[in-house]
Amino acid sequence: MPTMSEKILAKASGKEKVEAGDIVIANIDVAMTHDLTGPLSVESFEKIGAENVWDASKIVIPFDHQVPADSIDSANNHIIMREFVKKYNIENFYDVNAGVCHQILPEKGHVVPGEVIVGADSHTCTHGALGAFSTGIGSTDMAMVFAEGNLWLKVPETNRFNITGDLKENVYAKDVILHIIGEMGADGSTYKACEFAGETISNMSISDRMVLCNMAIEMGGKTGLVEPDKKTIDYVEKHSNKPYEIFKTDLDSSSLNMIDIDVSNLEPQIACPHNVDNVKPISEVDQEIDQVFLGSCTNGRLSDLRDAAKILKGKKVAKDTRMLVIPASQEIYLKALDEGLLKIFVEAGALVSAPCCGPCLGGHTGIIGPDEVSLSTSNRNFRGRQGSPDGKVFLSSAAVAAASAIEGKIVSPE
Amino acid sequence: MPTMSEKILAKASGKEKVEAGDIVIANIDVAMTHDLTGPLSVESFEKIGAENVWDASKIVIPFDHQVPADSIDSANNHIIMREFVKKYNIENFYDVNAGVCHQILPEKGHVVPGEVIVGADSHTCTHGALGAFSTGIGSTDMAMVFAEGNLWLKVPETNRFNITGDLKENVYAKDVILHIIGEMGADGSTYKACEFAGETISNMSISDRMVLCNMAIEMGGKTGLVEPDKKTIDYVEKHSNKPYEIFKTDLDSSSLNMIDIDVSNLEPQIACPHNVDNVKPISEVDQEIDQVFLGSCTNGRLSDLRDAAKILKGKKVAKDTRMLVIPASQEIYLKALDEGLLKIFVEAGALVSAPCCGPCLGGHTGIIGPDEVSLSTSNRNFRGRQGSPDGKVFLSSAAVAAASAIEGKIVSPE
Repeated sequence: MPTMSEKILAKASGKEKVEAGDIVIANIDVAMTHDLTGPLSVESFEKIGAENVWDASKIVIPFDHQVPADSIDSANNHIIMREFVKKYNIENFYDVNAGVCHQILPEKGHVVPGEVIVGADSHTCTHGALGAFSTGIGSTDMAMVFAEGNLWLKVPETNRFNITGDLKENVYAKDVILHIIGEMGADGSTYKACEFAGETISNMSISDRMVLCNMAIEMGGKTGLVEPDKKTIDYVEKHSNKPYEIFKTDLDSSSLNMIDIDVSNLEPQIACPHNVDNVKPISEVDQEIDQVFLGSCTNGRLSDLRDAAKILKGKKVAKDTRMLVIPASQEIYLKALDEGLLKIFVEAGALVSAPCCGPCLGGHTGIIGPDEVSLSTSNRNFRGRQGSPDGKVFLSSAAVAAASAIEGKIVSPE
Repeated sequence: MPTMSEKILAKASGKEKVEAGDIVIANIDVAMTHDLTGPLSVESFEKIGAENVWDASKIVIPFDHQVPADSIDSANNHIIMREFVKKYNIENFYDVNAGVCHQILPEKGHVVPGEVIVGADSHTCTHGALGAFSTGIGSTDMAMVFAEGNLWLKVPETNRFNITGDLKENVYAKDVILHIIGEMGADGSTYKACEFAGETISNMSISDRMVLCNMAIEMGGKTGLVEPDKKTIDYVEKHSNKPYEIFKTDLDSSSLNMIDIDVSNLEPQIACPHNVDNVKPISEVDQEIDQVFLGSCTNGRLSDLRDAAKILKGKKVAKDTRMLVIPASQEIYLKALDEGLLKIFVEAGALVSAPCCGPCLGGHTGIIGPDEVSLSTSNRNFRGRQGSPDGKVFLSSAAVAAASAIEGKIVSPE
């Protein structure tokens, strides 16, 4: 009667059974760090004095936060990481041209069901969409993983969101997760594994499930999870040749908290400044916008670009609004190019940049100034997140972002 | 018997005749400033206390240096400029999605023969390729232009480069101008109008002529110029509906210094660190590279992308080399997309960014770190120009850039 988290962590720690609250030493299947958090991991790793990394084949290093380098400091960070990659023969290295880490990992076959994945990035919970236990850790913890290949973890309890109902037209996975976060609050799932289940989830694509799991951290979740099904297996077998094991949650688990959510009447949702859980239905939001950002590990995938392009085709971005489109990976960029989506965006007056995190983290590529308002498909709207602390960030789906870019204000795609 | 510069400046200052060395007050036809130099112009303009700009229709403001905003400071600069644009009803405003100023000006029809054009950017000399007298001025001088619509100028003498010979395969306008700058030295044409003439120039496209004029400043030139011919008229009539007047140089002018250059045996040229006039034939250069930048107001046009794509098609950028491709405008971006060039670049492993100045000025988008080496199609390789003062920048044609990206070292496309 364990949850899927308990089952995965039992296997990873070589035990027959573990329970929520147990401290386990879990063997790590994939350890990911990127250009921004990596240098601190490397510095800490060098201090440990280990002769080698535990397993170079299990380390994945994508550059995405400050690419191409926007300053001498970030160029220096890149150099540190490239030297680390060479020194330890790390083959799973993705330089400035590849894309956002949380897209690269599943796309390049590094994620399969039943694994334990850690990443020095808070949205590492994304990969639970494929049935892995995947969580963000600190850069110094990552140094220990590099050295030892394992990490202590407290086995989490589970909040299982049983989601039912067909989504209305123009309502997407992003609206579902914003709604949940709004209901639960930013601390509503603290250190819980957040499982997304129910008929609505079964009907969702892998891309949609990644949106949900990606934002589990925004209600405090230790990870996001979806039980693998045929769609999962199809995705994994297409992208990876690693062995995998499927775990599902026994619904009689004592560490399971069931939460029923009916989304059949949900309208598009907006997270308003300056917290992700400040969520309102779009009909209650009246807001002009200066910038629209379509992209990120949350909503920079092909389906998001398709949703947005459908709305933008033959239309123009509003005169006083600028729109940035940043596909989450080169693979997505190429597909969007082939499908004519990039052309639609540029002809509409948007700017299409190379795959990177863009303005999401306020690194570079689309920083907002004082009193400017950003509508973003990314995952955080904290004060100053995309630039000036006197700016404002609203979060939405890709479709709302596209429709709003045309109007210069936040509107529903209807 | 005046030169074309003397004729244009005579007309602009309402005089029958002016001579090199005369100080004239020239009426300005186009005044360009961008996101980086603009704010200081605006600040100075406000101090003058003028009620209005002299002629809003003659001011052109493209954003290109720090787009999309890479910091709160640059976002603030953008806000200052957008407010100026609104306050004075400046219609010729091109926001973060448009492209590089020196491409936008001719492409959007702001440049025609016989005009006097000033820009708060040193490479404003580019526009002489269409037979205008076009020169870079300071931001505070620009404030006076905004207020009065005129500016004092000393009429320059002319260095007329009479260029003959057919260029060998894989040798381009960039090689010609690098060769000339290498021969003349960085101060070899100080305050001279640099005219490019001769059969080689007649055979060149407008795009090629822009490469030559763009870099006139790198040998100290006040402007670069090419006498208008049928190609010029075709270009101008396609892009602009402004009236124009064609001026040519009388070859018996006393302020004319003729310089004959035979380019028939020229091989590809490389400007080596840390000065543009440190030019060597490519056969004398043996240099590994970390980054290749294809773009800028010098070589980010469609013909450059075509030259590079031809070489990169079906090939891969070297493993330890990264390549940035930044089309000089959205119009070029769209054409390159339609022709399949962008796909070739991305499939080769390059990164295609939205139109901007890129790493040329070391603003953002591709900064190099200490000991890193950049091969760049842009126009300046001064120490620290693209990032770390301990990095090195080499300059070349687009074709050399593409061939070198594949090899990871500077090589000729042969």
